[in-house]
Amino acid sequence: MTYQLFYWPEIQGRGEFVRLALEEAGARYVDVARQTGKGVGVEALLRFLRDRKQPHPPFAPPFLRAGRLVIGQTANILLFLGGRHGLAPRDEGGRLWVHELQLTLADFLVEVHDTHHPIAPGLYYEDQKPESGRRAADFLRNRLPKFLGYFEGVLTRKRGQRYLTGSKLTYADLSVFQVIAGLSYAFPRAMARAARKHRQLFALHARIQARPRITAYLASERRIPFNEMGIFRHYPELDRA
Amino acid sequence: MTYQLFYWPEIQGRGEFVRLALEEAGARYVDVARQTGKGVGVEALLRFLRDRKQPHPPFAPPFLRAGRLVIGQTANILLFLGGRHGLAPRDEGGRLWVHELQLTLADFLVEVHDTHHPIAPGLYYEDQKPESGRRAADFLRNRLPKFLGYFEGVLTRKRGQRYLTGSKLTYADLSVFQVIAGLSYAFPRAMARAARKHRQLFALHARIQARPRITAYLASERRIPFNEMGIFRHYPELDRA
Repeated sequence: MTYQLFYWPEIQGRGEFVRLALEEAGARYVDVARQTGKGVGVEALLRFLRDRKQPHPPFAPPFLRAGRLVIGQTANILLFLGGRHGLAPRDEGGRLWVHELQLTLADFLVEVHDTHHPIAPGLYYEDQKPESGRRAADFLRNRLPKFLGYFEGVLTRKRGQRYLTGSKLTYADLSVFQVIAGLSYAFPRAMARAARKHRQLFALHARIQARPRITAYLASERRIPFNEMGIFRHYPELDRA
Repeated sequence: MTYQLFYWPEIQGRGEFVRLALEEAGARYVDVARQTGKGVGVEALLRFLRDRKQPHPPFAPPFLRAGRLVIGQTANILLFLGGRHGLAPRDEGGRLWVHELQLTLADFLVEVHDTHHPIAPGLYYEDQKPESGRRAADFLRNRLPKFLGYFEGVLTRKRGQRYLTGSKLTYADLSVFQVIAGLSYAFPRAMARAARKHRQLFALHARIQARPRITAYLASERRIPFNEMGIFRHYPELDRA
Protein backbone atom coordinates (compact mmCIF):
# COMPACT_ATOMS: atom_id res chain seq x y z
CA MET A 1 0.00 0.00 0.00
CA THR A 2 1.17 3.51 -0.79
CA TYR A 3 0.31 6.13 1.80
CA GLN A 4 -0.88 9.54 0.74
CA LEU A 5 0.37 12.38 2.91
CA PHE A 6 -1.52 15.65 2.63
CA TYR A 7 0.36 18.72 3.80
CA TRP A 8 1.20 22.22 2.64
CA PRO A 9 3.85 22.01 -0.07
CA GLU A 10 6.15 24.88 0.93
CA ILE A 11 6.93 24.26 4.58
CA GLN A 12 8.20 21.48 6.78
CA GLY A 13 5.65 22.37 9.45
CA ARG A 14 3.84 19.63 11.28
CA GLY A 15 3.91 17.45 8.18
CA GLU A 16 7.64 16.98 8.68
CA PHE A 17 7.11 14.80 11.75
CA VAL A 18 5.09 12.44 9.60
CA ARG A 19 7.58 12.55 6.74
CA LEU A 20 10.43 11.59 9.06
CA ALA A 21 8.52 8.57 10.35
CA LEU A 22 7.60 7.47 6.82
CA GLU A 23 11.19 7.91 5.64
CA GLU A 24 12.71 6.02 8.57
CA ALA A 25 10.18 3.24 8.07
CA GLY A 26 11.06 3.02 4.38
CA ALA A 27 7.35 3.27 3.65
CA ARG A 28 6.01 4.08 0.23
CA TYR A 29 4.20 7.40 0.24
CA VAL A 30 3.16 10.25 -1.99
CA ASP A 31 3.48 13.79 -0.67
CA VAL A 32 0.31 14.75 -2.48
CA ALA A 33 0.42 18.55 -2.48
CA ARG A 34 4.02 18.59 -3.72
CA GLN A 35 3.18 16.68 -6.89
CA THR A 36 2.02 18.17 -10.16
CA GLY A 37 -0.65 16.68 -12.32
CA LYS A 38 -4.22 15.61 -12.26
CA GLY A 39 -5.66 14.69 -8.87
CA VAL A 40 -2.62 15.87 -6.94
CA GLY A 41 -1.08 19.21 -5.96
CA VAL A 42 -2.33 21.65 -3.36
CA GLU A 43 -5.68 21.66 -5.14
CA ALA A 44 -6.22 18.03 -4.16
CA LEU A 45 -5.51 18.93 -0.55
CA LEU A 46 -7.97 21.81 -0.60
CA ARG A 47 -10.60 19.72 -2.34
CA PHE A 48 -10.27 17.11 0.37
CA LEU A 49 -10.63 19.69 3.14
CA ARG A 50 -13.76 21.11 1.51
CA ASP A 51 -15.37 17.74 0.86
CA ARG A 52 -18.61 17.70 2.84
CA LYS A 53 -18.99 13.96 2.34
CA GLN A 54 -15.76 12.99 4.08
CA PRO A 55 -16.86 10.90 7.09
CA HIS A 56 -13.72 11.84 9.05
CA PRO A 57 -12.96 15.40 7.97
CA PRO A 58 -9.60 16.67 9.26
CA PHE A 59 -9.52 20.09 10.90
CA ALA A 60 -6.25 20.92 9.18
CA PRO A 61 -3.28 19.28 7.46
CA PRO A 62 -1.36 17.09 7.94
CA PHE A 63 -3.57 14.11 7.32
CA LEU A 64 -2.70 10.69 6.02
CA ARG A 65 -4.66 8.39 3.78
CA ALA A 66 -3.90 4.76 4.47
CA GLY A 67 -6.17 2.59 2.36
CA ARG A 68 -9.67 3.39 3.57
CA LEU A 69 -8.48 5.25 6.66
CA VAL A 70 -8.07 9.00 6.78
CA ILE A 71 -6.10 10.05 9.84
CA GLY A 72 -5.56 13.61 11.00
CA GLN A 73 -3.54 15.26 13.80
CA THR A 74 0.21 14.74 13.71
CA ALA A 75 0.52 12.79 16.96
CA ASN A 76 -2.40 10.58 15.95
CA ILE A 77 -0.82 9.80 12.59
CA LEU A 78 2.39 8.86 14.40
CA LEU A 79 0.46 6.67 16.83
CA PHE A 80 -0.88 4.81 13.80
CA LEU A 81 2.43 4.60 11.93
CA GLY A 82 4.34 3.69 15.08
CA GLY A 83 2.27 0.57 15.54
CA ARG A 84 2.49 -0.44 11.90
CA HIS A 85 6.19 0.12 11.32
CA GLY A 86 7.85 -0.86 14.57
CA LEU A 87 8.43 2.75 15.61
CA ALA A 88 6.77 2.23 19.01
CA PRO A 89 6.74 -0.54 21.61
CA ARG A 90 4.03 -3.18 21.33
CA ASP A 91 2.99 -3.25 24.97
CA GLU A 92 0.31 -0.85 26.18
CA GLY A 93 2.49 0.94 28.73
CA GLY A 94 5.29 1.52 26.25
CA ARG A 95 2.93 2.66 23.53
CA LEU A 96 1.27 5.19 25.82
CA TRP A 97 4.63 6.45 27.07
CA VAL A 98 5.89 7.19 23.54
CA HIS A 99 2.62 8.91 22.73
CA GLU A 100 2.86 10.98 25.89
CA LEU A 101 6.34 12.16 24.85
CA GLN A 102 5.01 13.03 21.40
CA LEU A 103 2.17 15.07 22.88
CA THR A 104 4.62 16.97 25.07
CA LEU A 105 6.66 17.71 21.95
CA ALA A 106 3.45 18.96 20.33
CA ASP A 107 2.92 21.34 23.27
CA PHE A 108 6.51 22.51 22.93
CA LEU A 109 5.94 23.13 19.23
CA VAL A 110 2.94 25.38 19.87
CA GLU A 111 5.10 27.52 22.12
CA VAL A 112 7.84 27.70 19.48
CA HIS A 113 5.27 28.83 16.93
CA ASP A 114 3.89 31.44 19.31
CA THR A 115 7.28 33.15 19.59
CA HIS A 116 6.53 34.72 16.21
CA HIS A 117 2.73 34.59 16.43
CA PRO A 118 1.71 35.55 19.96
CA ILE A 119 -1.33 37.62 18.96
CA ALA A 120 -3.02 35.92 16.04
CA PRO A 121 -2.18 32.93 13.85
CA GLY A 122 -3.75 34.73 10.91
CA LEU A 123 -1.66 37.90 11.12
CA TYR A 124 1.84 38.39 9.76
CA TYR A 125 4.87 38.41 12.04
CA GLU A 126 5.36 42.05 11.04
CA ASP A 127 2.00 42.87 12.62
CA GLN A 128 3.02 41.46 16.02
CA LYS A 129 6.71 42.22 16.31
CA PRO A 130 6.91 43.91 19.73
CA GLU A 131 4.72 41.19 21.24
CA SER A 132 6.90 38.55 19.59
CA GLY A 133 9.94 40.12 21.18
CA ARG A 134 8.41 39.80 24.64
CA ARG A 135 7.13 36.30 24.02
CA ALA A 136 10.40 35.03 22.54
CA ALA A 137 12.39 36.48 25.44
CA ASP A 138 10.20 34.62 27.91
CA PHE A 139 10.37 31.49 25.78
CA LEU A 140 14.16 31.49 25.70
CA ARG A 141 14.47 32.33 29.39
CA ASN A 142 11.86 30.01 30.84
CA ARG A 143 10.21 27.62 28.47
CA LEU A 144 13.08 26.40 26.27
CA PRO A 145 15.19 25.29 29.29
CA LYS A 146 12.17 23.66 30.88
CA PHE A 147 11.29 21.57 27.84
CA LEU A 148 14.89 20.71 26.90
CA GLY A 149 15.65 19.85 30.51
CA TYR A 150 12.65 17.56 30.61
CA PHE A 151 13.68 15.61 27.52
CA GLU A 152 17.31 15.48 28.62
CA GLY A 153 16.05 14.03 31.90
CA VAL A 154 13.96 11.40 30.12
CA LEU A 155 16.94 10.48 27.95
CA THR A 156 19.29 10.02 30.89
CA ARG A 157 16.86 8.27 33.21
CA LYS A 158 18.43 4.86 32.80
CA ARG A 159 22.11 4.07 32.33
CA GLY A 160 23.17 3.50 28.75
CA GLN A 161 19.96 4.68 27.12
CA ARG A 162 20.34 5.35 23.41
CA TYR A 163 16.84 6.58 22.79
CA LEU A 164 14.11 8.34 24.75
CA THR A 165 12.42 5.14 25.82
CA GLY A 166 15.48 2.89 26.08
CA SER A 167 17.41 0.90 23.51
CA LYS A 168 14.96 1.12 20.61
CA LEU A 169 14.20 4.00 18.29
CA THR A 170 10.62 5.34 18.33
CA TYR A 171 8.81 8.05 16.45
CA ALA A 172 9.32 10.36 19.42
CA ASP A 173 13.09 10.22 18.82
CA LEU A 174 12.56 11.27 15.21
CA SER A 175 10.42 14.15 16.45
CA VAL A 176 13.09 15.23 18.94
CA PHE A 177 15.53 15.31 16.05
CA GLN A 178 13.22 17.64 14.15
CA VAL A 179 12.62 19.92 17.13
CA ILE A 180 16.34 20.26 17.85
CA ALA A 181 17.05 20.86 14.16
CA GLY A 182 14.33 23.47 13.93
CA LEU A 183 15.26 25.27 17.12
CA SER A 184 18.91 25.34 16.01
CA TYR A 185 17.80 27.02 12.80
CA ALA A 186 15.52 29.51 14.52
CA PHE A 187 17.59 30.34 17.59
CA PRO A 188 21.24 29.52 16.79
CA ARG A 189 22.64 31.60 19.63
CA ALA A 190 20.31 30.28 22.31
CA MET A 191 20.76 26.73 21.08
CA ALA A 192 24.56 26.99 21.06
CA ARG A 193 24.31 27.69 24.78
CA ALA A 194 21.71 24.97 25.29
CA ALA A 195 23.92 22.39 23.55
CA ARG A 196 26.49 22.67 26.34
CA LYS A 197 23.86 21.87 28.93
CA HIS A 198 21.79 19.22 27.20
CA ARG A 199 24.49 17.06 25.70
CA GLN A 200 22.53 13.84 25.44
CA LEU A 201 19.69 15.51 23.61
CA PHE A 202 22.02 16.99 21.03
CA ALA A 203 23.83 13.65 20.77
CA LEU A 204 20.46 12.04 20.04
CA HIS A 205 19.88 14.60 17.32
CA ALA A 206 23.25 13.72 15.76
CA ARG A 207 22.56 10.00 16.04
CA ILE A 208 19.22 10.30 14.25
CA GLN A 209 20.74 12.49 11.57
CA ALA A 210 23.33 9.79 10.89
CA ARG A 211 20.79 7.02 10.33
CA PRO A 212 21.12 5.98 6.69
CA ARG A 213 17.52 6.60 5.67
CA ILE A 214 17.38 9.94 7.47
CA THR A 215 20.71 11.05 6.00
CA ALA A 216 19.47 10.15 2.53
CA TYR A 217 16.19 11.92 3.11
CA LEU A 218 17.80 15.11 4.38
CA ALA A 219 20.02 15.24 1.30
CA SER A 220 17.09 14.71 -1.05
CA GLU A 221 14.69 17.15 -2.61
CA ARG A 222 11.94 15.63 -0.53
CA ARG A 223 13.28 17.61 2.45
CA ILE A 224 12.02 21.17 2.21
CA PRO A 225 14.56 23.68 3.58
CA PHE A 226 13.68 25.66 6.70
CA ASN A 227 12.21 29.03 5.85
CA GLU A 228 10.30 31.95 7.33
CA MET A 229 6.86 30.53 6.64
CA GLY A 230 6.97 27.50 8.91
CA ILE A 231 7.02 26.86 12.63
CA PHE A 232 10.77 27.37 13.03
CA ARG A 233 11.71 30.81 11.71
CA HIS A 234 15.00 32.58 12.01
CA TYR A 235 14.39 36.16 13.07
CA PRO A 236 17.73 37.30 14.55
CA GLU A 237 16.00 39.92 16.71
CA LEU A 238 14.19 37.14 18.60
CA ASP A 239 17.40 35.21 19.32
CA ARG A 240 18.99 37.65 21.72
CA ALA A 241 21.67 36.73 24.21
CA MET B 1 -8.70 -1.08 40.88
CA THR B 2 -8.89 2.50 42.06
CA TYR B 3 -7.32 5.07 39.76
CA GLN B 4 -5.28 7.91 41.17
CA LEU B 5 -5.69 11.19 39.33
CA PHE B 6 -3.00 13.80 39.93
CA TYR B 7 -3.99 17.35 39.13
CA TRP B 8 -3.88 20.81 40.68
CA PRO B 9 -6.54 21.02 43.40
CA GLU B 10 -7.96 24.47 42.75
CA ILE B 11 -8.83 24.50 39.06
CA GLN B 12 -10.76 22.41 36.58
CA GLY B 13 -8.03 22.87 33.99
CA ARG B 14 -6.98 19.94 31.85
CA GLY B 15 -7.67 17.55 34.69
CA GLU B 16 -11.40 18.14 34.20
CA PHE B 17 -11.42 16.26 30.91
CA VAL B 18 -10.13 13.22 32.75
CA ARG B 19 -12.54 13.68 35.65
CA LEU B 20 -15.51 13.77 33.28
CA ALA B 21 -14.46 10.50 31.65
CA LEU B 22 -13.90 8.83 35.03
CA GLU B 23 -17.26 10.08 36.29
CA GLU B 24 -19.20 8.99 33.20
CA ALA B 25 -17.50 5.59 33.35
CA GLY B 26 -18.47 5.23 37.00
CA ALA B 27 -14.83 4.41 37.71
CA ARG B 28 -13.38 4.48 41.19
CA TYR B 29 -10.75 7.16 41.51
CA VAL B 30 -9.02 9.37 44.02
CA ASP B 31 -8.37 12.98 43.10
CA VAL B 32 -5.08 12.87 44.95
CA ALA B 33 -4.17 16.54 45.37
CA ARG B 34 -7.65 17.39 46.65
CA GLN B 35 -7.40 15.00 49.59
CA THR B 36 -5.93 15.79 52.96
CA GLY B 37 -3.80 13.40 54.94
CA LYS B 38 -0.64 11.42 54.71
CA GLY B 39 0.56 10.51 51.22
CA VAL B 40 -2.04 12.68 49.46
CA GLY B 41 -2.61 16.38 48.87
CA VAL B 42 -0.72 18.67 46.53
CA GLU B 43 2.49 17.61 48.26
CA ALA B 44 2.05 14.09 46.89
CA LEU B 45 1.66 15.52 43.39
CA LEU B 46 4.80 17.64 43.72
CA ARG B 47 6.76 14.74 45.19
CA PHE B 48 5.78 12.63 42.21
CA LEU B 49 6.86 15.29 39.73
CA ARG B 50 10.24 15.64 41.45
CA ASP B 51 10.88 11.91 41.73
CA ARG B 52 14.02 11.23 39.71
CA LYS B 53 13.37 7.49 39.79
CA GLN B 54 10.03 7.61 37.99
CA PRO B 55 10.58 5.64 34.77
CA HIS B 56 7.85 7.59 32.96
CA PRO B 57 8.03 11.10 34.41
CA PRO B 58 5.15 13.34 33.33
CA PHE B 59 6.02 16.82 32.07
CA ALA B 60 3.06 18.30 33.92
CA PRO B 61 -0.27 17.33 35.50
CA PRO B 62 -2.69 15.79 34.82
CA PHE B 63 -1.37 12.28 35.07
CA LEU B 64 -3.13 9.10 36.01
CA ARG B 65 -1.90 6.14 37.97
CA ALA B 66 -3.59 2.93 36.91
CA GLY B 67 -2.02 0.02 38.73
CA ARG B 68 1.59 -0.03 37.55
CA LEU B 69 1.00 2.41 34.72
CA VAL B 70 1.60 6.14 35.01
CA ILE B 71 0.03 7.99 32.11
CA GLY B 72 0.48 11.67 31.33
CA GLN B 73 -0.99 14.08 28.76
CA THR B 74 -4.75 14.58 28.84
CA ALA B 75 -5.53 13.13 25.41
CA ASN B 76 -3.31 10.14 26.13
CA ILE B 77 -5.09 9.44 29.41
CA LEU B 78 -8.40 9.59 27.56
CA LEU B 79 -7.09 7.24 24.88
CA PHE B 80 -6.34 4.78 27.66
CA LEU B 81 -9.61 5.26 29.54
CA GLY B 82 -11.66 5.24 26.35
CA GLY B 83 -10.48 1.74 25.55
CA ARG B 84 -11.00 0.45 29.05
CA HIS B 85 -14.44 1.90 29.73
CA GLY B 86 -16.25 1.76 26.44
CA LEU B 87 -15.84 5.47 25.77
CA ALA B 88 -14.33 4.90 22.32
CA PRO B 89 -15.00 2.53 19.43
CA ARG B 90 -13.11 -0.77 19.40
CA ASP B 91 -12.05 -0.71 15.76
CA GLU B 92 -8.82 1.01 14.77
CA GLY B 93 -10.40 3.58 12.46
CA GLY B 94 -12.99 4.62 15.03
CA ARG B 95 -10.45 4.78 17.82
CA LEU B 96 -8.14 7.02 15.79
CA TRP B 97 -11.01 9.26 14.73
CA VAL B 98 -12.09 9.92 18.33
CA HIS B 99 -8.50 10.61 19.28
CA GLU B 100 -8.13 13.00 16.36
CA LEU B 101 -11.17 14.94 17.56
CA GLN B 102 -9.72 15.05 21.07
CA LEU B 103 -6.41 16.41 19.79
CA THR B 104 -8.23 19.11 17.86
CA LEU B 105 -10.07 20.02 21.07
CA ALA B 106 -6.65 20.19 22.76
CA ASP B 107 -5.46 22.65 20.10
CA PHE B 108 -8.62 24.69 20.62
CA LEU B 109 -7.96 24.73 24.36
CA VAL B 110 -4.46 26.15 23.92
CA GLU B 111 -5.94 29.03 21.95
CA VAL B 112 -8.56 29.64 24.64
CA HIS B 113 -5.82 29.77 27.26
CA ASP B 114 -3.75 32.15 25.16
CA THR B 115 -6.56 34.72 25.12
CA HIS B 116 -5.48 35.66 28.64
CA HIS B 117 -1.84 34.56 28.36
CA PRO B 118 -0.55 35.57 24.94
CA ILE B 119 2.90 36.66 26.10
CA ALA B 120 4.04 34.25 28.79
CA PRO B 121 2.41 31.37 30.65
CA GLY B 122 4.35 32.35 33.76
CA LEU B 123 3.19 35.98 33.92
CA TYR B 124 -0.08 37.23 35.39
CA TYR B 125 -2.94 38.30 33.15
CA GLU B 126 -2.47 41.81 34.56
CA ASP B 127 1.01 41.86 33.01
CA GLN B 128 -0.30 41.16 29.51
CA LYS B 129 -3.66 42.91 29.35
CA PRO B 130 -3.34 44.94 26.14
CA GLU B 131 -1.94 41.92 24.31
CA SER B 132 -4.76 39.79 25.69
CA GLY B 133 -7.25 42.27 24.32
CA ARG B 134 -5.81 41.93 20.83
CA ARG B 135 -5.51 38.18 21.04
CA ALA B 136 -9.04 37.67 22.43
CA ALA B 137 -10.53 39.90 19.73
CA ASP B 138 -8.87 37.82 17.04
CA PHE B 139 -9.90 34.63 18.82
CA LEU B 140 -13.56 35.63 18.95
CA ARG B 141 -13.58 36.92 15.39
CA ASN B 142 -11.66 34.15 13.64
CA ARG B 143 -10.74 31.16 15.72
CA LEU B 144 -13.86 30.53 17.81
CA PRO B 145 -16.15 30.36 14.74
CA LYS B 146 -13.65 28.14 12.93
CA PHE B 147 -13.41 25.58 15.72
CA LEU B 148 -17.12 25.62 16.60
CA GLY B 149 -18.02 25.40 12.94
CA TYR B 150 -15.75 22.41 12.53
CA PHE B 151 -17.30 20.49 15.41
CA GLU B 152 -20.82 21.45 14.36
CA GLY B 153 -19.95 20.06 10.92
CA VAL B 154 -18.66 16.80 12.39
CA LEU B 155 -21.81 16.48 14.49
CA THR B 156 -24.14 16.98 11.56
CA ARG B 157 -22.25 14.88 9.02
CA LYS B 158 -24.68 12.02 9.09
CA ARG B 159 -28.43 12.18 9.52
CA GLY B 160 -29.67 11.52 13.04
CA GLN B 161 -26.28 11.63 14.75
CA ARG B 162 -26.52 11.99 18.49
CA TYR B 163 -22.82 12.16 19.19
CA LEU B 164 -19.70 13.33 17.39
CA THR B 165 -18.91 9.93 15.95
CA GLY B 166 -22.45 8.63 15.52
CA SER B 167 -24.88 6.96 17.88
CA LYS B 168 -22.51 6.21 20.75
CA LEU B 169 -21.03 8.50 23.34
CA THR B 170 -17.24 8.84 23.39
CA TYR B 171 -14.78 10.75 25.53
CA ALA B 172 -14.62 13.42 22.82
CA ASP B 173 -18.29 14.22 23.47
CA LEU B 174 -17.55 14.71 27.15
CA SER B 175 -14.71 17.02 26.21
CA VAL B 176 -16.95 19.03 23.89
CA PHE B 177 -19.33 19.45 26.80
CA GLN B 178 -16.51 20.86 28.91
CA VAL B 179 -15.27 23.20 26.19
CA ILE B 180 -18.76 24.61 25.57
CA ALA B 181 -19.35 24.97 29.31
CA GLY B 182 -16.02 26.72 29.77
CA LEU B 183 -16.40 29.04 26.82
CA SER B 184 -19.92 29.96 27.99
CA TYR B 185 -18.43 30.91 31.35
CA ALA B 186 -15.55 32.88 29.87
CA PHE B 187 -17.29 34.57 26.94
CA PRO B 188 -21.03 34.65 27.71
CA ARG B 189 -21.79 37.33 25.14
CA ALA B 190 -19.87 35.75 22.30
CA MET B 191 -21.26 32.33 23.13
CA ALA B 192 -24.85 33.58 23.23
CA ARG B 193 -24.36 34.59 19.61
CA ALA B 194 -22.58 31.34 18.78
CA ALA B 195 -25.43 29.29 20.24
CA ARG B 196 -27.78 30.53 17.55
CA LYS B 197 -25.41 29.34 14.85
CA HIS B 198 -24.14 26.07 16.25
CA ARG B 199 -27.36 24.56 17.55
CA GLN B 200 -26.33 20.92 17.42
CA LEU B 201 -23.17 21.56 19.38
CA PHE B 202 -25.06 23.32 22.13
CA ALA B 203 -27.70 20.58 22.07
CA LEU B 204 -24.91 18.06 22.56
CA HIS B 205 -23.69 20.06 25.54
CA ALA B 206 -27.19 19.95 27.05
CA ARG B 207 -27.53 16.23 26.36
CA ILE B 208 -24.25 15.44 28.11
CA GLN B 209 -25.16 17.67 31.04
CA ALA B 210 -28.39 15.68 31.47
CA ARG B 211 -26.70 12.29 31.68
CA PRO B 212 -27.34 11.00 35.19
CA ARG B 213 -23.72 10.53 36.23
CA ILE B 214 -22.67 13.87 34.79
CA THR B 215 -25.60 15.68 36.43
CA ALA B 216 -24.71 14.10 39.75
CA TYR B 217 -21.07 14.98 39.32
CA LEU B 218 -21.75 18.60 38.42
CA ALA B 219 -23.90 18.99 41.54
CA SER B 220 -21.25 17.44 43.78
CA GLU B 221 -18.32 18.98 45.57
CA ARG B 222 -16.04 17.00 43.28
CA ARG B 223 -16.75 19.59 40.56
CA ILE B 224 -14.59 22.64 41.16
CA PRO B 225 -16.36 25.86 40.10
CA PHE B 226 -14.93 27.85 37.20
CA ASN B 227 -12.61 30.60 38.39
CA GLU B 228 -9.97 33.06 37.21
CA MET B 229 -7.06 30.68 37.72
CA GLY B 230 -7.96 28.07 35.13
CA ILE B 231 -8.11 27.87 31.36
CA PHE B 232 -11.58 29.40 31.05
CA ARG B 233 -11.58 32.81 32.76
CA HIS B 234 -14.27 35.40 32.69
CA TYR B 235 -12.71 38.79 32.02
CA PRO B 236 -15.60 40.92 30.72
CA GLU B 237 -13.22 43.22 28.84
CA LEU B 238 -12.18 40.28 26.63
CA ASP B 239 -15.77 39.36 25.76
CA ARG B 240 -16.62 42.37 23.67
CA ALA B 241 -19.42 42.53 21.17
